[in-house]
Amino acid sequence: MTVYNFAAGPATLPDPVIKQIQAELPSINSSGMSIMEISHRSKLFDDIINEAEQDVRDLMHVPDNYHVLFFQGGGTGQFAAVPMNLATKHKRIALLDSGHWATRAGDEAANLGYQVDVLASTKDQHYHALPQLDKAISANDYDYLHITTNNTIEGTAYHQLPEHGDVTLVGDLSSNFMAEQYNVSDFGLIFGGVQKNLGPAGVTLVIVRDDLVQPVDHIPSILNYNLFVKKNSMYNTPPVFNIYATGLVLKWLKDQGGIAGIEKVNRQKAALLYDFLDESTLFANHIKASDRSLTNIPFSTGNADLDTQVINSAKEAGLMNLKGHRSVGGLRASLYNAMPLAGVQALVDLLHNFEKQH
Amino acid sequence: MTVYNFAAGPATLPDPVIKQIQAELPSINSSGMSIMEISHRSKLFDDIINEAEQDVRDLMHVPDNYHVLFFQGGGTGQFAAVPMNLATKHKRIALLDSGHWATRAGDEAANLGYQVDVLASTKDQHYHALPQLDKAISANDYDYLHITTNNTIEGTAYHQLPEHGDVTLVGDLSSNFMAEQYNVSDFGLIFGGVQKNLGPAGVTLVIVRDDLVQPVDHIPSILNYNLFVKKNSMYNTPPVFNIYATGLVLKWLKDQGGIAGIEKVNRQKAALLYDFLDESTLFANHIKASDRSLTNIPFSTGNADLDTQVINSAKEAGLMNLKGHRSVGGLRASLYNAMPLAGVQALVDLLHNFEKQH
Repeated sequence: MTVYNFAAGPATLPDPVIKQIQAELPSINSSGMSIMEISHRSKLFDDIINEAEQDVRDLMHVPDNYHVLFFQGGGTGQFAAVPMNLATKHKRIALLDSGHWATRAGDEAANLGYQVDVLASTKDQHYHALPQLDKAISANDYDYLHITTNNTIEGTAYHQLPEHGDVTLVGDLSSNFMAEQYNVSDFGLIFGGVQKNLGPAGVTLVIVRDDLVQPVDHIPSILNYNLFVKKNSMYNTPPVFNIYATGLVLKWLKDQGGIAGIEKVNRQKAALLYDFLDESTLFANHIKASDRSLTNIPFSTGNADLDTQVINSAKEAGLMNLKGHRSVGGLRASLYNAMPLAGVQALVDLLHNFEKQH
Repeated sequence: MTVYNFAAGPATLPDPVIKQIQAELPSINSSGMSIMEISHRSKLFDDIINEAEQDVRDLMHVPDNYHVLFFQGGGTGQFAAVPMNLATKHKRIALLDSGHWATRAGDEAANLGYQVDVLASTKDQHYHALPQLDKAISANDYDYLHITTNNTIEGTAYHQLPEHGDVTLVGDLSSNFMAEQYNVSDFGLIFGGVQKNLGPAGVTLVIVRDDLVQPVDHIPSILNYNLFVKKNSMYNTPPVFNIYATGLVLKWLKDQGGIAGIEKVNRQKAALLYDFLDESTLFANHIKASDRSLTNIPFSTGNADLDTQVINSAKEAGLMNLKGHRSVGGLRASLYNAMPLAGVQALVDLLHNFEKQH
């Protein structure tokens, strides 16, 4: 039975990548050593991390005045790192509250002593649409504006970035990183854990404009951008295996025609499911059409017992991890880069049959 | 050619572990999904992390009033986390300066605003022996005493813990974690990256007595012990693959007779090399006999060109990564748990032959 994994992250990875990791696990590049065993100070790993960085640059067309950095600690680590490194002038951050992870980012910054102004929120609309700024903001007031480009739990995404005046834009791209095209130059900083679209959990990618990287004292070194820039992401031992695996996913992504190529497929996949849901008399997705995520699609019958039946039927058919986040309920299909169109077709077929039977 | 990898970390792993990871990489536990793809909220991963925790408890005889936690960020992350979580009363730390990593730990704490008192140092002896306290210290003055149980670069290890009165002892065990026996109850807290004796880089193990875990505000969540205790090390997405791989190494370690069993082998391995070095007329190790490390053995001919020749000959014979740390020079053999006795014998044979020819 073909298994399709709709988990929200850690998530499905490309088959050829898993096969390559498996094949070369005992000996990387004829070294006689596993990738898990090689020194991060070796020429071998230097090539791997430099290639991964270059592939990020190629894929996202990263301008030369941006650094590409590899951290540990996930998005949650960056919720602390970003204010500690960037909110040095006003110690004041603007935030658009688009859901759970935006709230978490704000809470972390506030807990660390920064003023966090939530300038717009769609909480009272159950986050079924995205918040937008309704007044101009200025860099005289804020060190940056934080947005979550894709809301993993709520199923929304900024396909157009909100207006932000001269305020530096910081984007948490965790759940649509390289799943759709953004202009890096629209942001001062982008970050995201790789465990949704780009690799196994354990690596956090940060892309930051060089003028924003300043010597900052009195913060933990593992969250210090300036140190990581100086040491090429190897201030301390990096997660060697995870960076290697991420590098292979980046090469796979290039083979798919880069982000433009994969976005096209992602739009087909999402359209297949949204079109079904919109025509369905049983299932529904309640997100405002223009704000719908390509990568995370929550839906429901409106009946918790029936939702559970669907989830169980799907599981029996090899369609895994469709249970919605506990805060939303229902179902959620995560259609990250490595999910093939055939997986979404299998899901739609199953939903269709279920609908006919009920 | 059999390759033996003497790298100081990331380092050699047990062959059976690499083979098992390779075999089950496409499908963990018949799930049809790779361990890299499964959710950290799944029953499958819950079992993996809980077993890993239990195996740590079994192997180190961890008392019930200690938590076993898995972090990201390495020892360097803990250099920040330990003072942030533990130095809440006096904001004052005692430190024994046994070398590079002890210094780094002290520098990180000082940079974060804690007072760090270096109570003894063997810097003027080139760290060829371990510092010991020559006066009593008190918990009325210090939140804890920091020691590095094994000094990876300098090649020393505390086989007997220093006197520390009623002051909480914190041990950075990174490079001899589970390579020799320590009583957990002698410490308030133990930490270490796993990438030397216990797994691939990307996991940091922390064992901490429960009374030391207090709610601490205003610190990054990814370094907050209290949050990690509450969430069973899953406050945010953990490095799933790395914890899984570490779990397999722990099971392998149990098969070797646990830490008592592996320490016996480690003592044989170290004795084989030290005995050769002590009898050699060409090579020497300068560490005080009682302070010699079991896991990291620096040595040299005293002639940099000759050292380079040895390193190159060894490399040709498949004995890799013997170059000493740049701050010490010469050679260094790291004999972690997964290095077989045969590897050390091959090294000694090569050194012996080299000596005869010179």
